[in-house]
Order: sequence, then C-alpha cells, then structure tokens
Amino acid sequence: MLEVNVGVVGLGNVGSGTLSILAEDAVRIAEKLGFRLRVTAVCSRTVETKQLPESLGPVRRTTDWREVVNAADVDIVAELVGGTGVAAEIINAALAAGKSVVTANKELMALQGAEVWDRAIAAGTNLAMEASVAGGIPIHSVLREGIAADRISALYGILNGTSNYILTEIERNGTDFGVVLAEAQRLGYAEADPGADIDGFDARSKLAILTALAFGERITPSDIYTEGIRRISPFDFQYAHKLNHTIRLICAARLTSEGLLLSVRPALIPQSTILASVQGAYNAIWIRGHYGQDTFYYGRGAGPHPTGVAVVSDLMRVAREIRSGSPERVSPFAHARLGEYRPIPITRQTRAWYLRFRVRDRPGIIAALAGILAEKKISLDAVLQLPGEGKEDLPFVITLEPTSEKDVRDAVQTMSTLDFLIEPPLALPMETSL
Amino acid sequence: MLEVNVGVVGLGNVGSGTLSILAEDAVRIAEKLGFRLRVTAVCSRTVETKQLPESLGPVRRTTDWREVVNAADVDIVAELVGGTGVAAEIINAALAAGKSVVTANKELMALQGAEVWDRAIAAGTNLAMEASVAGGIPIHSVLREGIAADRISALYGILNGTSNYILTEIERNGTDFGVVLAEAQRLGYAEADPGADIDGFDARSKLAILTALAFGERITPSDIYTEGIRRISPFDFQYAHKLNHTIRLICAARLTSEGLLLSVRPALIPQSTILASVQGAYNAIWIRGHYGQDTFYYGRGAGPHPTGVAVVSDLMRVAREIRSGSPERVSPFAHARLGEYRPIPITRQTRAWYLRFRVRDRPGIIAALAGILAEKKISLDAVLQLPGEGKEDLPFVITLEPTSEKDVRDAVQTMSTLDFLIEPPLALPMETSL
Repeated sequence: MLEVNVGVVGLGNVGSGTLSILAEDAVRIAEKLGFRLRVTAVCSRTVETKQLPESLGPVRRTTDWREVVNAADVDIVAELVGGTGVAAEIINAALAAGKSVVTANKELMALQGAEVWDRAIAAGTNLAMEASVAGGIPIHSVLREGIAADRISALYGILNGTSNYILTEIERNGTDFGVVLAEAQRLGYAEADPGADIDGFDARSKLAILTALAFGERITPSDIYTEGIRRISPFDFQYAHKLNHTIRLICAARLTSEGLLLSVRPALIPQSTILASVQGAYNAIWIRGHYGQDTFYYGRGAGPHPTGVAVVSDLMRVAREIRSGSPERVSPFAHARLGEYRPIPITRQTRAWYLRFRVRDRPGIIAALAGILAEKKISLDAVLQLPGEGKEDLPFVITLEPTSEKDVRDAVQTMSTLDFLIEPPLALPMETSL
Repeated sequence: MLEVNVGVVGLGNVGSGTLSILAEDAVRIAEKLGFRLRVTAVCSRTVETKQLPESLGPVRRTTDWREVVNAADVDIVAELVGGTGVAAEIINAALAAGKSVVTANKELMALQGAEVWDRAIAAGTNLAMEASVAGGIPIHSVLREGIAADRISALYGILNGTSNYILTEIERNGTDFGVVLAEAQRLGYAEADPGADIDGFDARSKLAILTALAFGERITPSDIYTEGIRRISPFDFQYAHKLNHTIRLICAARLTSEGLLLSVRPALIPQSTILASVQGAYNAIWIRGHYGQDTFYYGRGAGPHPTGVAVVSDLMRVAREIRSGSPERVSPFAHARLGEYRPIPITRQTRAWYLRFRVRDRPGIIAALAGILAEKKISLDAVLQLPGEGKEDLPFVITLEPTSEKDVRDAVQTMSTLDFLIEPPLALPMETSL
C-alpha cells in the first residue's frame, strides 16, 4: 500500500479546514508518516458549490455519503457532519463496510461512544475522535497515551469557548450579559440560537466524553448536573474579585469515596489558579492525577483550522495503525457502570458557596436571611456589600462555610419567597481547592 | 502472549517511581491494555539493598544489566540509568537483542537521538522517550500524535524546575540569588553541584529533543545558545514588573525565513502571558502552530511519580505496539539538516532588549551610555530608575527598540570598559510577542 485513502463526509467549517491542511501540507505529512495520505472522495449536500483546494488533485465529489462509505478506494471515513441523526448512520455504515472512522462528533460520541467503539472493535477497524472535544487541545491523545498510566482523581475544564468569551467580556468591560451576547452573535462568536452554548449543553457533551476517557466509566450527558451562565452579572465579577476569585463555566468531574461528582456550571475559582487566566474563546483542561499530580492543557476550542489539526492528526494515527495492521482491541469506553466511578447526585457534595441577592433595600434583610441560614444550621462565612449601589436594586453577597448542596438548595428555596427579593438568590459553588 | 514483560535497569528516583506505579496499579493498567504488564527483572548496582513493592511478585534481581537485556522473558527494557556512558551501551545492546526500549535519558537522546531511533527501526523494535523531557507533561505524545498534523512555527518552554523555583522565589521574596540557591539545596530542590540546572545545560538537552520532534530537524545541544540565571537579581524583577513583564529561563525555538533561532536564556516575558503564571518547580511548554494557533501544556517537570507516569505510559504504548506487531517505521528525528529548519546564529535575531546597569553614581552616566548606543545607531526606548537605591551601587535600566543581538553585544562590550560600571551590563531579550 503506497498510500492510505481518505473520504471526507461533511464540508462545513471543520471539513474545509481539514481539506486545506491535507492539501497544503501533503508533503510534510507524507514525510512524517512514510507514506501519503490521499483524499479520494468528498461528500456534501452542496458539494457542487464547494471550491476544493487545487493541490488536492482529482477527487470524486458526491452528494450521497453511501458512495464514500462504500468506495473501494476509501480506507478511512472522516465523519464531519455532526449531530446524532445521519452522522450515526454514516459511522455505522462505514464500520460495517470495514472502514476506519475519524469523527469530530461530540453529541454522538457523548451519547453512544461506548457502542460505536464496540462496533469498531467488532469490525476490526480503527476509530478516533480527537476533534470531538476542545478542537485545538489534543486531550484525547493525552488521556489515551500521554498519561495513560496515571490514576485520575479530578478533571476540570473550560470547554465552551462562547461562554468563556461572554464571561471574560463581562469581566473585562462590565457590560451586561444580554449586550455581550448580542455583540458575540454579531461577531459570529455565538450562534443565533445560543442555548447549546450558554446553557451548558455543548460543554456537557464534552465533559461526558472526557469523563468516560479519564475514568473508564460509562457516562451519559444526563448524568451531569448542568446550569448555564445567563444569570451572571457584572457585579458578580466585582464581588468575586473582592473574594480574590473569578467566575468561569466550569466542567468538573471529581472522584469521591462514594463516586463521581459531575457538573457543568458557573463557579467561583481563585484568581491565582492557572484556569483563571483562560480568556476569550480559549478552552482549557486541568487534570489531577494520583501520581503525576497537576497537569494543564490549553488551546483553541474551535475553528476550522484548530479542529482540522485534530482531524488530520487522527487521520495520521489511524493511517499508521491501518498500515501496521493493528485494529482497535480495547475500548477507552469499555467499563460498565459498576465500580468506584459511578456518578452520584451533585446534591451530595459539600463546599463553600457564594450566595448573591438582589433586593429592594429596607431594614431587617440580613436578619431575615441569616435567620433562615441559622435555622438550617448553615454557617455564614462573610457578608459583602460594595459601595455605590441603588436602594431599589441592591446586590450583595453572603458566602457560606462548606455546606452540602442539598442544604443550600433548601435554603435558597425558602429564601425565594421573601418579598424584598427582586429575583431568587443565585448560588454558585466556590472551587477553592483548585 | 498473555502479558508483555518488562525489565527495569536503574532503581533511582525514576526507577522506584516506575516500579511503584506498575505494582500498585497493575490491575487498572491491565484493564486499559487488555493484557498484563509484568516486571520480570530489575537491575541496579545496589539491587540487594532495594526494597521492591511486594505486589510486584517474584522478580529476578541482578547487578548486571546484560542479564536484563538478554533475558528471554524481557520484551521491553526500561533504561532509567541516565547519562551517556553505560546507558548508551544498555540501549544499544537491548535493541541489538531485539528488545524494545523505553528511556528517560535526556542527555543521550539530545546527543544521539537520531542514531538511537535509526537503530530501533533497523532492529524492528519500538522506542519511547516521553520521560526524557518535562516528566509530568506528555509533550512527546502531543508532538508525535496529538498535533502531528500542525506546522509548528515556534516553541517556548520553561523546562528546568530548579531554575524556575529559584527565579520565582527571588521574585516572590526579593531574596538574592545565592541565598535562594542555598535554601533550594537544603530543601533538595537543587543539587550540590547546581551548574547543569542553573547554567541552562539541562534545559538545553530538553530543548534539543523537543526541537527535533517539533521541526523534524537534526538538532544537537551545541546548536543552542545557552545562558544561565546566576546574574538575575531581585531588582531585575522590580524593573521587569515596572515594564509589566517578569523573568523566566525561557527555552525558545522560533522559525524565521532564514532558519531556526534556538536559545536557552533568562528573558523578560509579559506578565499577562500564561507562561508568566508558571511558578515554582513546574514546567510548561507553549507551542504556536500555523493551523492550531496557540496551545499550552503544564505540569510537574520531575519527581519519581510524575516521571514514573511518563515511563509507564510509554511502557503501555510500546507494549500495545509489540502486541499488534507494529515496530517503528519512521523516526521523529528523521530529517537531515537540509531545509528551512536549520539552526542559524542567535546573533542574527532582532528584538527589544532590557539592559541593566549597576553603577557608582556620578554625573554624565546616561550621556555616556546613550552616546555609545547612538554611535551604533541603536534606538533607546526608555530609561527606568526606581527610587531608593544607594549611590555606590545604583541599578538602573535602559530598554531598547528592536535591535539585532549582534549590535547589542557590540554595544555591551564597548560599555563594559566604562569605569563607573560595577559589573558588565546585563542584556536580556524581551519576548514581547508571547
């Protein structure tokens, strides 16, 4: 075999980034591999309107993915369509046809990763999905090989670039959430329907995949407590800074003696932690290992070229494995849900809390709130009020000593009925152990 | 083959860390691999005094590495002796005997990596060296697979934990270099003979390996301009902070249109860059790719367990490759020195500079220094003098607009003869593009 042949299905952002790297860097890639990686077929519903890089050479164009999947001159199918519908059909058909698969599909791998991997092993083919999480950061390679020997105890990620861009813009400019979101949409950093990003669902899929890889446990997105960033205000950053913290949408998987605590939610993190330095649309992952202690990985979370690097690096690895005749043997998703790594309800966790209130000022407010906390045996740590706020919509903050999430939720629910509150209290955990 | 057998040569810090992970996590490792990794032989000059982990089971102990290398029940030899003497013999004998090799040896791989790799390919065996650079950071895995598809344009590293510990202690406490070094030696963070660390030679070996991997060019340590941290004073940090920078021992490999600029030297870096947040004995690597843009990797640089994770992760990868019958085919060190990636003299670079003087104060000093700069057509950017220093040993700083290193060296040499100087001027580059 003088070359390994690739069929690309999906010519959106990631597909076009992938093709441009394969075309422009064909010689360099061949030098690294010792053989060529050739694109023989591409598929898109609008393939006739697509301009392909000239140096790609002659390529079959089709609007029917089945033609790519069944082509004799395709060894690896790159599934860059996304979503859980036709993408699943494409991958399953490719594996059934004995092709290896490279995918950038986070939703599908988060929901059905274990099954897809089992199918690849049964078919004696190869599978790779570096591009499915944190495009520019080679975190799959790190977990699969780089630190494979470590026993991981915690993983924290900033995995949604749109949310991180919005939060750091609020932090930097003191602009309200809605204004920043509208500006992000105008600039193309946020989608017209931003829910998947700002409500945490995109990050949740990514955390499900990373948790499955890091802990070897079957995890589905519904195992993960998820809360978005819509309620974060400029004054939350002011109070957080006062506490030497900042606020990020943190994806967390933490091992306790009872099991895994999984969440995607805005949280206070110390300003001194390296995670706090992650600005704008960047992604980052912090891993704590029993042996290797702390490691940290940072890069672009998305974009045609950063994600294209992940896809092409996967194509190179899978091509090497095809050439050496070594199919997948053990799934990184292999373990069933049996052991010490089963997810447990987030309400069981105990930590320090930031409670933020917006009130119509009048005497007795602190007494009323402190009374509810005392009744539930919750210890108050500090009361903070920054100067210069109006009496009609006054924000202030109470921080709590370590308290279970269940007790905090009870207290917040009781407080929500108080008539001086403009909106229910906002409770954010404080990730003080970072 | 129900298991893959490992022989460990060298039972120092890294060797003992490796054995403890292999013993304590044997079941978890076997689950990930689908087969067992068994230690069958260990070698050390003082093997009879060594306590091996009990759960390792029966292991042959020997003081003769040849017994390990030639044992029929050893598939992979872990060379954890270090240095370029007997370690080279061990690796060469192991490859000649058809064994695969995992090594933590930075000196040897920096000097002879290309040859060792060629020998492994010729022997049809496997080779891995994740532990040779930045122990806890899986940077080889990242360069070899994770971002293999990217075209790298620059790589910056903090690769010597001892130097970074000393610099960040000087920065934090304002203590003099000599005092911090003595304290570091007392705590075991610096060796009795600290030259390899604080004069940059340890970091130089690591940069040589990373550059070879990142750019695919034959690099030897002597290609790299190297300067240590002995001259850095607390007041250098004060002036750097005044300029919104800090000082780190930076390993740099930057691609220019003429070739590669390679250096290990103390440099000013912006306080806002994520590299500036690397404190204490941590290591970090910043990579700029043509496609993936910026990625950043951070972790422990040394220590029995972080480095042990690298060794055992390598053993797992090599064991997988042995099981699937796929020997090394293409060397990551493969390219000869032909192309756009040849090293060029550091004197050709042009950048902004920090020039720090210590003088006996008297009138006319600035005029004399500015005169020399003007004569050499070097543009001065700013003159900084912090208040409160004594007249007999007065530090101050001149920053320069971008200037070639050759011109700066000429100017510094001319200045060095001036009788008001207590010591020759200290010139540090400013890495403003980070």
